[in-house]
Amino acid sequence: MHYFFFKNNHLYCENVRIIDIVKKIKTPFYLYSHRTIYEHFNKIDEAFKDIPHIICYSLKANSNLSILKMLQKMGSGADIVSGGELYKALKAGIPAKKIVFAGVGKTDEEIEYAIKSDILMFNIESISEAEKINSIARKFKRKVDAALRINPDVDVDTHHYDITGKKENKFGLNIELGKKLFIRLNKLKNLNICGIHVHIGSQITKVTPYIMALKKVVKLIDDLDKIGIKIKRLNIGGGLGIIYKDETPSTAKEFADNILPLIKPLDVTLILEPGRFIVGNAGILVTKVLYIKKGGVKNFVIVDAGMSDLIRPSLYGAYHNIIPIIKTKGVIKVDVVGPICESGDFLGKDRELPKVKEGDFLAVMGAGAYGFTMASNYNARRRPAEIIVKDDKFWIARKRETYKDLIKGEKIIKGL
Amino acid sequence: MHYFFFKNNHLYCENVRIIDIVKKIKTPFYLYSHRTIYEHFNKIDEAFKDIPHIICYSLKANSNLSILKMLQKMGSGADIVSGGELYKALKAGIPAKKIVFAGVGKTDEEIEYAIKSDILMFNIESISEAEKINSIARKFKRKVDAALRINPDVDVDTHHYDITGKKENKFGLNIELGKKLFIRLNKLKNLNICGIHVHIGSQITKVTPYIMALKKVVKLIDDLDKIGIKIKRLNIGGGLGIIYKDETPSTAKEFADNILPLIKPLDVTLILEPGRFIVGNAGILVTKVLYIKKGGVKNFVIVDAGMSDLIRPSLYGAYHNIIPIIKTKGVIKVDVVGPICESGDFLGKDRELPKVKEGDFLAVMGAGAYGFTMASNYNARRRPAEIIVKDDKFWIARKRETYKDLIKGEKIIKGL
Repeated sequence: MHYFFFKNNHLYCENVRIIDIVKKIKTPFYLYSHRTIYEHFNKIDEAFKDIPHIICYSLKANSNLSILKMLQKMGSGADIVSGGELYKALKAGIPAKKIVFAGVGKTDEEIEYAIKSDILMFNIESISEAEKINSIARKFKRKVDAALRINPDVDVDTHHYDITGKKENKFGLNIELGKKLFIRLNKLKNLNICGIHVHIGSQITKVTPYIMALKKVVKLIDDLDKIGIKIKRLNIGGGLGIIYKDETPSTAKEFADNILPLIKPLDVTLILEPGRFIVGNAGILVTKVLYIKKGGVKNFVIVDAGMSDLIRPSLYGAYHNIIPIIKTKGVIKVDVVGPICESGDFLGKDRELPKVKEGDFLAVMGAGAYGFTMASNYNARRRPAEIIVKDDKFWIARKRETYKDLIKGEKIIKGL
Repeated sequence: MHYFFFKNNHLYCENVRIIDIVKKIKTPFYLYSHRTIYEHFNKIDEAFKDIPHIICYSLKANSNLSILKMLQKMGSGADIVSGGELYKALKAGIPAKKIVFAGVGKTDEEIEYAIKSDILMFNIESISEAEKINSIARKFKRKVDAALRINPDVDVDTHHYDITGKKENKFGLNIELGKKLFIRLNKLKNLNICGIHVHIGSQITKVTPYIMALKKVVKLIDDLDKIGIKIKRLNIGGGLGIIYKDETPSTAKEFADNILPLIKPLDVTLILEPGRFIVGNAGILVTKVLYIKKGGVKNFVIVDAGMSDLIRPSLYGAYHNIIPIIKTKGVIKVDVVGPICESGDFLGKDRELPKVKEGDFLAVMGAGAYGFTMASNYNARRRPAEIIVKDDKFWIARKRETYKDLIKGEKIIKGL
């Protein structure tokens, strides 16, 4: 579900023709649909309305401040994984008491920042981390809430870089440690272990692995209850898949209907950490065709966006649908590649594309999540602008970088 | 060859103990050795001293301004692939007449900028591009020098993302087009086709593929000479490999000794575009051990640098040697992973590492090329500082980013 569609041969974002944006903003740029984000958020919120819950939007998918602000207005909290994300979440006005802090490598500085900001809780990933947070909390004479992130050893069908809940991953604490682990860490005086966190991966399209993981967690919560350790928050992470090509992901409602029977009997506040599900299909990358090139054995459409703007095809072999923003007739078989000087720089390989010519504009679909947040200045390219459309208006939410931005913080050392 | 070595159990960069830098600069940071860069540049310069040549350092490997400045002082030119790299090269004082502009996706804006800056020449990658540069040059009433980049269809033994001289790659013009291509493009009145460019890939450790490609090019130069098209510059690109693990790359001298017999009979200025060869082994990434974690089936050393700082292991499966900056006894078998929330975030897998503990510091070796230039703000992480050592002194060449830098150019749109 999203609000990018064709009308009179023109691709629209909500009620704005993309060609009308292209006339005013230089490509490449990211373009987000307000309404798509709004509705995705509401679908999840609605699906879980029968139980106490907090949606902690996962900033790593897209942390544009204007998007954070609109989610904040809708009542969203934040799933953060760094001091930088905490900074951005607070900047957008997300209440600290709706912020949960995950990640295997929290630094002392980041832990201090989170304690001082009085966030809702830490998702703890290792025994060492529990001890470190405890000792920093002691320094501030505080007792901080924490969930232990449990690694349920559940397999999921997604890119191997996106699997996080298997034994061989760096994430979470082995579920087999069970009660013993909670008993041990509960002794730390400046930690209040009151939650369980379980996040099994990203871009998961079936509900079955969630159910498998949840069943293990529910049993653990029961076991803990019997020995007087009360779990008041259950954080089931994120990972809900979206449609990039021909996936048939569960809807928010199907997902909720399947897992609610397991959760309702528990006396917990549910925490959800959707990222891609909310913003993935809400964004596209708009790019210009610079050259059409006939190669030795292949033909290439060379565009002005590359792996520095969107690394997912190169890094994960991810598929993104690519379409011209004005419908054309005929079909060409091409690789769609960027301007960067390596063969890994492509947006789509062996595509049957509507026939385009130099100067045309393309939309790379489903680029709202893990697009701009992973962008770099590789090849000294300026990161693109981010534009938001709401109904029949659009705004620049982040300006394209300038050449000067490329050397920020640098100085030429004399005497070398 | 590099100036990172152990003395009294301490890792040094030239005459500075790395632990003494760590005491003053927060990890993670990149650290470069001035002398290593200096000697690498000199080795190439020396190896080709018998013929007219220009070393056009390839900015994409590392475009830190202080490094560019020191290379400029040594007489280096620049191989650039974007307007941003042109900006940086000029900022460092590299003369425009030593700058060559390559890349398959040059925009109008970039072509104009390069023509106005009066660079040495363009490396042209497609017929459309030749026509575009010609038409922009006409607008400025200029005739600009250009080399045609020839794709020699030569295979090389490197990562498939680093192969650029095969028929199926997006780069260059098919060599089989031969003379006809030059005759056709020579008719463009505002282009002076006076060079041939051939770049077959990156991290190539054997000289054989260069010889194969060169033989094809030499024949083409002869053919062109017979019909009155004079090639005065031969650009053989870059791609010289370095040692990451157990490679045995050709030295600059071996490389020169092998190819000079082919080039000396020609009446050309040779252009070389080394990048990795000059800076690859001249840089390391210094990182702190945050946590040691026992997983279900693996043990992890979690450090404060991740794929946002150095993406090569994740993107290319690249091997980087990882060593503690103070020697330790004993060995542990671990994955060295970063703080980023995905399983693709690792610096080394299944490593036998000297036994380290939390709070120790590690050096990720061979990180001078394609390290910082590919860094991102993924997970809202601040990009690391870049430090340069010369003899017994060190300087901050680029400051670590701040939280505020993360939101530069962003504003919260009212009314969403």
